[in-house]
Amino acid sequence: MDKNQQYILTERPKGMPDDTHLVFTEAPLPTPGYGEVLLKTIYLSLDPYMRGRMNAGASYARSVNLGDVMTGRTVSEVMTSNSSSLAPGDIVLSDNGWQRYAVAPAEGLVKLNPEEMPISTAVGIMGMPGFTAYVGLLDLAQPKAGETVVVSAAAGAVGQVVGQLAKMKGCYVVGVAGAPDKCEYVVKEYGFDACINYKDDDFEAQLMAACPKGIDVYFENVGGRVFDAVMELVNDFARIPVCGRIAHYNMTSLPEGRDRLIPFMGKVLVKRLMLRGFIQSDHHDRLPDFRRDMSRWIQQGKIRYQEDIIDGFDNAISAFQGLLQGANRGKLLVRVSDDPTLRPSLSKH
Amino acid sequence: MDKNQQYILTERPKGMPDDTHLVFTEAPLPTPGYGEVLLKTIYLSLDPYMRGRMNAGASYARSVNLGDVMTGRTVSEVMTSNSSSLAPGDIVLSDNGWQRYAVAPAEGLVKLNPEEMPISTAVGIMGMPGFTAYVGLLDLAQPKAGETVVVSAAAGAVGQVVGQLAKMKGCYVVGVAGAPDKCEYVVKEYGFDACINYKDDDFEAQLMAACPKGIDVYFENVGGRVFDAVMELVNDFARIPVCGRIAHYNMTSLPEGRDRLIPFMGKVLVKRLMLRGFIQSDHHDRLPDFRRDMSRWIQQGKIRYQEDIIDGFDNAISAFQGLLQGANRGKLLVRVSDDPTLRPSLSKH
Repeated sequence: MDKNQQYILTERPKGMPDDTHLVFTEAPLPTPGYGEVLLKTIYLSLDPYMRGRMNAGASYARSVNLGDVMTGRTVSEVMTSNSSSLAPGDIVLSDNGWQRYAVAPAEGLVKLNPEEMPISTAVGIMGMPGFTAYVGLLDLAQPKAGETVVVSAAAGAVGQVVGQLAKMKGCYVVGVAGAPDKCEYVVKEYGFDACINYKDDDFEAQLMAACPKGIDVYFENVGGRVFDAVMELVNDFARIPVCGRIAHYNMTSLPEGRDRLIPFMGKVLVKRLMLRGFIQSDHHDRLPDFRRDMSRWIQQGKIRYQEDIIDGFDNAISAFQGLLQGANRGKLLVRVSDDPTLRPSLSKH
Repeated sequence: MDKNQQYILTERPKGMPDDTHLVFTEAPLPTPGYGEVLLKTIYLSLDPYMRGRMNAGASYARSVNLGDVMTGRTVSEVMTSNSSSLAPGDIVLSDNGWQRYAVAPAEGLVKLNPEEMPISTAVGIMGMPGFTAYVGLLDLAQPKAGETVVVSAAAGAVGQVVGQLAKMKGCYVVGVAGAPDKCEYVVKEYGFDACINYKDDDFEAQLMAACPKGIDVYFENVGGRVFDAVMELVNDFARIPVCGRIAHYNMTSLPEGRDRLIPFMGKVLVKRLMLRGFIQSDHHDRLPDFRRDMSRWIQQGKIRYQEDIIDGFDNAISAFQGLLQGANRGKLLVRVSDDPTLRPSLSKH
């Protein structure tokens, strides 16, 4: 039988992580004990939050220990089962991390129904990124019809959903992304009213022109130049859910200059801004609503989504590097093994 | 009869305002027209927001124009009336600004009942500062029993109320003020659990020691060193209503150094902080609740208050300078004329 393959965090990156920090290794296959299953990873979800887990400092969640398999959400197939609740061939949502095989107690696993939704969506539109968009926009920003909503990382796993939800609410939606084809895509496919490329020299002027009534909601995924430009355009009572700051995750030093925190806080006061950092896992009471609403909206064609599936476990590091640089289009996944639900003759359900 | 006396804004201050910016002048008494009343100022309310009105840049409200009487809330006595709705001797809440006499339409004036509450409270505990504390703490910060609430400018018109409201909610309340006697006062008279002097060399260490469970709510009135120290101690899900930034109102340049905004926003994200700038006038729907609750709490002895009344219109500028430097104890007022309700033989109601 196969050997296991894993990426071990061996060193904490200062800037961009590479194969000196995440070391590819082979290991013997683990053996499931009583009540456990052996899982084969089909999809490994790659998400920006993973960069924070590589650091020593506490973020929302514990750091990955040096010497441990890098953490990550996975969609996996049950290979052998020592539990009556799961059978070989079952597909589950699991937390196997960056490895090809894993053993886990059957009890903590969520069995997926491939007939309902493609199994990859369990870590995308129907999973953490979709729920992040749902909670952050609908519950925290509470956009009203006619308001201007700006979404950064608009073509990303979260941004694409935020923009469509805001359109459903009757808002005027301006995306910000890092490539012309991404901008085109979110306007054409998701109905954003406009999308600006933050790499353009005149990005700030373009954003201003695209938001003639100012900005009422800014869904913050990126920080950096986009955040600064938005802050010049916010209206009184603007709401800013702070979901991510990907432009800063690999920063190794802070820019010198004037202290921008003091005028920033002055603006928070005078414009009566609401800023709120959040993480979806704090809002689990809303999961049933999310699952009900999102599956209905997808069925009705009101919400669409894009997945960026990279084939081959060997490409995990370069795919993750691309994510941090904005190379992906939609939800980024690594297909570690063939998806059995895409081979009708082999599908088991 | 008297001449009028006024402070005219003749120049926009860069730092601390003085008599080169606010020029004392005499003017003829104005004459009330149809439906108008002639008002004599009894109390002029001095409040930190006034500093912002002296600037050219738009704050929440319009700047005072150069050449105009400096703006301000007043408690006034009706001297002559050309309206059936008010009679000479009536006491009203008005917006006469920094002047001894003014003419105003009777219609916009709120008649005060001196038997209910001392008339000075209409610009203090029962007015804007009390309402600011009520909305900012109860509606925006929503403190829960057992949480740690830190209040800056704890001995000020707003801070003294915030701390007492937080105590009523069962919170552990730590004040921050700028003098040992102020700190003593808020602990003894208002029941704060502790109060730290931000001018002490080891202020940060004292604040940390006073907040062993971290900080869940910070009521921001001041900015500067206090804000920075609090941000090191905030817990996950801390709420920060941003009411004022008085340490920065007279700043003429920003400190050089590293950009603190980037790590600040990182903390907002990771700790899931809620920051919210606000001004009480945006929340007028809560005024009836406030008036009902606050008058009851005062009657019940649950809320106490202190007023710092400076006698003499000549002292308005130095009193305002003192306010910006933290010299006042409680709500700061200038008694421009005798309070007729304090002379029982002359009281009219």
